Amino acid sequence: MTSAAVMSAYAFRLIAGGYVWRLPIKGLDYATVAWRFQEKEALAFANYDKVPVLTDGDTVVTDSFEIMRYLDRAYPEAPVLGEGVSLQRVMFFKQLVERSITPALFKIVVLDLLEAIHPDDRAYFRKTREARFGATLEAVSNPEQGRQQLKQALVPVSAQLKESLFLDGETPSGADYLLFGSMMWAYTVSTEPLVEESDPVAAWFARMLEVHDAVAGKAMTIRDL
Amino acid sequence: MTSAAVMSAYAFRLIAGGYVWRLPIKGLDYATVAWRFQEKEALAFANYDKVPVLTDGDTVVTDSFEIMRYLDRAYPEAPVLGEGVSLQRVMFFKQLVERSITPALFKIVVLDLLEAIHPDDRAYFRKTREARFGATLEAVSNPEQGRQQLKQALVPVSAQLKESLFLDGETPSGADYLLFGSMMWAYTVSTEPLVEESDPVAAWFARMLEVHDAVAGKAMTIRDL
Repeated sequence: MTSAAVMSAYAFRLIAGGYVWRLPIKGLDYATVAWRFQEKEALAFANYDKVPVLTDGDTVVTDSFEIMRYLDRAYPEAPVLGEGVSLQRVMFFKQLVERSITPALFKIVVLDLLEAIHPDDRAYFRKTREARFGATLEAVSNPEQGRQQLKQALVPVSAQLKESLFLDGETPSGADYLLFGSMMWAYTVSTEPLVEESDPVAAWFARMLEVHDAVAGKAMTIRDL
Repeated sequence: MTSAAVMSAYAFRLIAGGYVWRLPIKGLDYATVAWRFQEKEALAFANYDKVPVLTDGDTVVTDSFEIMRYLDRAYPEAPVLGEGVSLQRVMFFKQLVERSITPALFKIVVLDLLEAIHPDDRAYFRKTREARFGATLEAVSNPEQGRQQLKQALVPVSAQLKESLFLDGETPSGADYLLFGSMMWAYTVSTEPLVEESDPVAAWFARMLEVHDAVAGKAMTIRDL
């Protein structure tokens, strides 16, 4: 019924990167548009240079979290972030994902990621990320330390997933999509499992791959190539 | 108007321990009852051997989180945990506090705590805690490692407190009380600051000491003795 176009961060033709996996979340009928790192002109209409960018009719929304907020307002039947204290608490969870979990994932997969992206984009990727981190990608890469950090950061996540099927309860919602967005990004490019099979996070991730007709589970990963 | 008696975990006559600081939270007019570790007979009426225990008329509730839930149900004007996805998200935050933050605090203050409790309770404290941890208190104590772990675990907390005065928004609520309960417990016995003065967590903690007529700020600490 509702149609929204998500311009997604495809790093390599069928390998979805960026935070697009935060978004296929509300049972909306949407179309994704493949995009490569340097196709800035394709985003000029949004006056923005990063993905994802959502267009819904004449409305243009940038930034994955702002898009989630927009979808909550525009299609309020099944809010994923919520309002008031619910929103405040998921904003805290976003901080945890972005400041504790994603940096650990980056240490694990940064060189896998470099390998997975289109060869024409590698120099751009290296230049922009090395400027952001103030270090070479090889210096940032530290899979063993990253796995330790990831395990520590996921301790409360694992504990919660022993209590409920999803972080937000019996069905996935905002917190689940925020974490899944980061982990899916790493999952598509990583040659090895990110968490131990016995960890409740592994079973949760498998469940997240199956939701919404397994839209994420059907995505191609580096291991399919 | 409303009167509820909170039996609090006083480790030393005026040093409040346990999770009683999760509780003075709803502007209720309550009375605390001093209690020492081995006074199990004082709790027999609750068929429980730990504090806090809340009595509200004929109702007896044990466990700090269950007490918070009870107060939300009994006095719903200002819920601190909430329902549905709000509750689910604060349950995740509780996991973070109990599994990442409290263990770090314990490494920092365990020997300060032993020093602070009544001399008659020290053997009991040592025996029960060493059984729980499977290690001597001296082996658990590692303030330097604890401070590193605490700093890492508080990264998303610090980030969120740059965005809002309290974790749950412009006024303190469930997430604030859960974290404050753990930090206050350490604060009352620690001879040194737990976080750097420049950390937003330090300013938040100072604000938490002032809420509800500074009930926590007026508590005696080891540094007053």
